[in-house]
Amino acid sequence: MRFIIGFLFLLTVLSPAECGNILVWFTEGSHWINLKIVLETLIDRGHDVTVLVPDASLYMKAEESDRFSYQPFNVSIEAQDMQDFLDDFLHFSMYEMDQLNLLQIHIRFYQLVSKDQDLCLAYCDGALNSPELMDKLQHGKFDVMLADPIFPCSDILAEELDIPLVYTLRFSIAHTLERLCGQIPAPPSFVPGAMSKLTDKMSFTERILNMLFYLSQDALAISLWKKMDSYYTEYFGRPTSYCEMMGKADIWLIRTYWDFEFPRPFLPNFKFIGGLHCTPAKPLPKDLEEFVQSSGDDGIVVFTLGSMVNNITKERSNTIASALAQIPQKVLWRYSGDKPDTLGENTKIYDWIPQNDLLGHPKTRAFITHGGTNGIYEAIYHAVPMVGIPLFGDQPDNLAHMKAKGAAVVIDFNSMQIQDLVDGLNAVINDPSYKENATRLSRIHHDRPMKPLDESVFWIEFVMRNKGAKHLRVEAHNLTWYQYHCLDVFAFLFTILTVVLYVFFKLCKFFIMRCCSRSKQKRKRKNE
Amino acid sequence: MRFIIGFLFLLTVLSPAECGNILVWFTEGSHWINLKIVLETLIDRGHDVTVLVPDASLYMKAEESDRFSYQPFNVSIEAQDMQDFLDDFLHFSMYEMDQLNLLQIHIRFYQLVSKDQDLCLAYCDGALNSPELMDKLQHGKFDVMLADPIFPCSDILAEELDIPLVYTLRFSIAHTLERLCGQIPAPPSFVPGAMSKLTDKMSFTERILNMLFYLSQDALAISLWKKMDSYYTEYFGRPTSYCEMMGKADIWLIRTYWDFEFPRPFLPNFKFIGGLHCTPAKPLPKDLEEFVQSSGDDGIVVFTLGSMVNNITKERSNTIASALAQIPQKVLWRYSGDKPDTLGENTKIYDWIPQNDLLGHPKTRAFITHGGTNGIYEAIYHAVPMVGIPLFGDQPDNLAHMKAKGAAVVIDFNSMQIQDLVDGLNAVINDPSYKENATRLSRIHHDRPMKPLDESVFWIEFVMRNKGAKHLRVEAHNLTWYQYHCLDVFAFLFTILTVVLYVFFKLCKFFIMRCCSRSKQKRKRKNE
Repeated sequence: MRFIIGFLFLLTVLSPAECGNILVWFTEGSHWINLKIVLETLIDRGHDVTVLVPDASLYMKAEESDRFSYQPFNVSIEAQDMQDFLDDFLHFSMYEMDQLNLLQIHIRFYQLVSKDQDLCLAYCDGALNSPELMDKLQHGKFDVMLADPIFPCSDILAEELDIPLVYTLRFSIAHTLERLCGQIPAPPSFVPGAMSKLTDKMSFTERILNMLFYLSQDALAISLWKKMDSYYTEYFGRPTSYCEMMGKADIWLIRTYWDFEFPRPFLPNFKFIGGLHCTPAKPLPKDLEEFVQSSGDDGIVVFTLGSMVNNITKERSNTIASALAQIPQKVLWRYSGDKPDTLGENTKIYDWIPQNDLLGHPKTRAFITHGGTNGIYEAIYHAVPMVGIPLFGDQPDNLAHMKAKGAAVVIDFNSMQIQDLVDGLNAVINDPSYKENATRLSRIHHDRPMKPLDESVFWIEFVMRNKGAKHLRVEAHNLTWYQYHCLDVFAFLFTILTVVLYVFFKLCKFFIMRCCSRSKQKRKRKNE
Repeated sequence: MRFIIGFLFLLTVLSPAECGNILVWFTEGSHWINLKIVLETLIDRGHDVTVLVPDASLYMKAEESDRFSYQPFNVSIEAQDMQDFLDDFLHFSMYEMDQLNLLQIHIRFYQLVSKDQDLCLAYCDGALNSPELMDKLQHGKFDVMLADPIFPCSDILAEELDIPLVYTLRFSIAHTLERLCGQIPAPPSFVPGAMSKLTDKMSFTERILNMLFYLSQDALAISLWKKMDSYYTEYFGRPTSYCEMMGKADIWLIRTYWDFEFPRPFLPNFKFIGGLHCTPAKPLPKDLEEFVQSSGDDGIVVFTLGSMVNNITKERSNTIASALAQIPQKVLWRYSGDKPDTLGENTKIYDWIPQNDLLGHPKTRAFITHGGTNGIYEAIYHAVPMVGIPLFGDQPDNLAHMKAKGAAVVIDFNSMQIQDLVDGLNAVINDPSYKENATRLSRIHHDRPMKPLDESVFWIEFVMRNKGAKHLRVEAHNLTWYQYHCLDVFAFLFTILTVVLYVFFKLCKFFIMRCCSRSKQKRKRKNE
């Protein structure tokens, strides 16, 4: 019965689905995992999906089960170049940052982002400067382009093909893309910059830090985007910019929701669809279920540091294993490095675990996580409190959100001692507030007018049906920065006020002088 | 089949509906019409609804068909006082404004709003200072309070009863309530103040006017709200304010949508549910249908100036009737004044017309409207282009929206000549762009993830299920105005920068002086 109702619901809300032709710009890593689920649903609904894939891609590998077409294109770099960059970025985030001063961190970060930009532009070149590919796409009769704006140039292609553009984005550092290009307002007084690790409740010092974070990231972005602006201008042969082109996107699907985000202003074309990949737990394989059941009333702890970290130092793995050995719960640890010497009997190591099914298991008491958005959303979905050990990228910031919402304890990976992890686990398992808060977030996640996957599909199809969604795009896109902030208006009003006051005082002075001189003359005449 | 699917849709999206107890603060006029539809649906879903009604109410009359309970309370004023005020306001808006200068308009407007405030506070007194009523409500076990914030004090009662508060609001002048109390951002550079008659595309002069409009309305609001602040502070016996209390509302249901509104920033607890009263057209009564059918291919024009204007001057009605007599369409005019002398054979006058059913009739070519929101929404729903003759209140601004969106021609009521109305009607009927734009707005209206009535019910029930929606409320509510705009942060950073520069220049000067004096001494020694 539930299935029939669900099916009819989909029919009513999402119909009529006129079958369309969807073009997808390449993405990588977790961005791709998330997008793939949307694409699968679009195919279920009868659309054709074509995915552009550079031959140097690391994660977009064609699988037999794939139902969408891959459209490969050649790029001038190798997959190894991208892998080297990722390794370098990982090393910087995990190990270098603690040993560098603030200036060194900024310089190193600038170098890394600049390198990333060069790689991305090589990808752009590969697609946009291939006459065969462009010709094929021009004849492909696409209805919409889907892209993650973190990977540039999708806007160029959408403009070239004259089709609407839908973005799907987790975040950009300090929301630079969303603010400067998408025109979303973000007052620094209560909207912490993404990656700042701040919350919406900021002290005076934190507000200063947040402001400096915004300012520094804006300066960095403006400096870095010069190269992009030149690329875009050169491509079109008319003055344009990276930001201007990005601002033409019809819809921005943001991969979070108010369970995870601190409430903040947004725009009609920003839709928050976080957690669309989450599903109810499926039954576990027999051996796993047996191990889980053997935990008795104590239950289990699920532990993973994500798919990008396959190895950590022996010293760190031993510290972690020693801590895990001290808790009464059974632990399922996804780890493909060497077996730690201190591994307890309660802990089992796996190359891979069915993370979502484990998090949804009634015996699960806690989730030790690096803090990737996908994992955090699965924990929210199943109301599991977290111990966060953030490693790099957005992970520290993601976990700062969960900590502020009372659903997680956060521990520093490099300085973590055995007792820190034991204390963290005991807190989230035995202090009921963590479970209560995780349950509250879960309720917020589930209790919304439309499921996030359905909402994503709705807006992609809306754009296809209506050839865009320009009625949701604010006029701010057509204003300069000083017009947006009314600086020209203030300058004008200030000038008028000054002139009026000046004339007023001059007139007053004139009349006072005149009165004085008259009375003087009078007195003079009198004296004469 | 459609009915079954619709029913199951409601079941899936809105279930489970735990039956609750809803308290409704009094409203008046079109505010009440709109709210009543939501209440009916809530009752359909099994909730109990109690509506607070002052005995001086003009519009909230108990009808036999009503399924909700009315809870009357005594107030120190008569219905006639409110009627006198409304007549006075109507006269000012329709006839006085053209004859007064800007300063006189402001003074008169201030007096009128001040009078309205006194009437509202008399209503507040009636409810809040009645021990019997308050005692009854305290024992009523309500789950949520519904109110239109235009009618104050619902927030006091919600606080007293310790229940969440859901607002339903069309607008406040220059969005003062939404901005200053609800914390919605509205940059004056592209968000025209409500009632300004401006659009989101503003010239430099218009942006100056918009800024001045915002500033003057803010000054007016702050000055007027002092009385409210005193009332609130006195009631609670602790320092508080009208705005602070209003800011505690969990959800703001705004009675517009992006078909009508210019896109602008908003907040997670603002939901746009405009047009919830619209329904498909029902068949017309036989006599009406016959008259409509007699129009042939030319079709009909539907004409009403709203329920609040029952009479206009003979001269105006004759001008209108002469114009209507010149068009080939048949006209159905809702008008209860004297029959105009110039009435054409194609025009029929009715005391009442089934407006929605007529607008949804395939023969309808145009809608002559005063520009009330409810009527405009019915026209949007049925994709009917409009000729607007705004009279007072939000009507000129509403019609400015429709004109900017290309779905209406607007004519001034007082200066309108016969030919103006004829030209207006010919334009919207014969120039296909008006019908196309009305159809585009209609598509936007219908093509949304959830019907507005369902969305309203969802959020009211959400608040009941979750005892509020604090996770959607921005932290801006807890900041002062200078903190919100980061003025303290800027002042601090500016001070630091000044001190650093001062010390730097002082040091430079010191070292230069020292160098100079050394080289002088050297030269001196050399010379010696």
